[in-house]
Amino acid sequence: MASIFSKIVDGTIPAYKVAEDDRFLAFLDINPLMEGHTLVIPKQETDYLFDLDADLYADLQKFAYKVAQAIKPAMNCKRVGVCVIGFEVPHAHIHLIPINQMHDMNFSNPKLKLKPEEFEAIAEKIRKEL
Amino acid sequence: MASIFSKIVDGTIPAYKVAEDDRFLAFLDINPLMEGHTLVIPKQETDYLFDLDADLYADLQKFAYKVAQAIKPAMNCKRVGVCVIGFEVPHAHIHLIPINQMHDMNFSNPKLKLKPEEFEAIAEKIRKEL
Repeated sequence: MASIFSKIVDGTIPAYKVAEDDRFLAFLDINPLMEGHTLVIPKQETDYLFDLDADLYADLQKFAYKVAQAIKPAMNCKRVGVCVIGFEVPHAHIHLIPINQMHDMNFSNPKLKLKPEEFEAIAEKIRKEL
Repeated sequence: MASIFSKIVDGTIPAYKVAEDDRFLAFLDINPLMEGHTLVIPKQETDYLFDLDADLYADLQKFAYKVAQAIKPAMNCKRVGVCVIGFEVPHAHIHLIPINQMHDMNFSNPKLKLKPEEFEAIAEKIRKEL
């Protein structure tokens, strides 16, 4: 069965997309720790990040690098943190999280509740920096 | 002033090294969340990960990929998680953490206390897989 992220890739499930090419997609996490919390995925459905072959892994990271460069000015944060855990959705994904202090990256923190228009405004701010 | 990681690079401070080339170094975190918790750094001292230029960033990730491939069989974990936060040491570093469940990546967890011979045995197990 297609992962929820593959359904975002094929358009079955909507998402607030910030960047896309033929192999990779970046979109806002719908349960964000911080405003601008973004997921970067390979369109190829692979559960475990390090099961991607070395070249695809490197290209995914290059794609994530460009997105991270855009998130920082868009969200006016001190830095963009990176996290890959991967037990929740069986489709490799990199979390890019705008952070101002170490505690902002704690996945035990309550998730933000944002309105659709707030997500869309954030996605647009990031897209403008790309 | 040189960062604590630059002092590890130049040998002023000892570390349990697992992989090294002319530009990158991987060594065990001395305050590990899990056995096999490894830090991967560029030898060039740069505070913020995404201030590395795009090529050096990509090569750092390729180096981390090889180390992650070795950690998984060495530590017999379900997967290797990735985290970059970066407020503690002003020298970009990627945490590679052997994990079996989501909670294993929580930086609020108490750190393990290991003996020097335990660190050395873990480093050797990872080096053997490289």
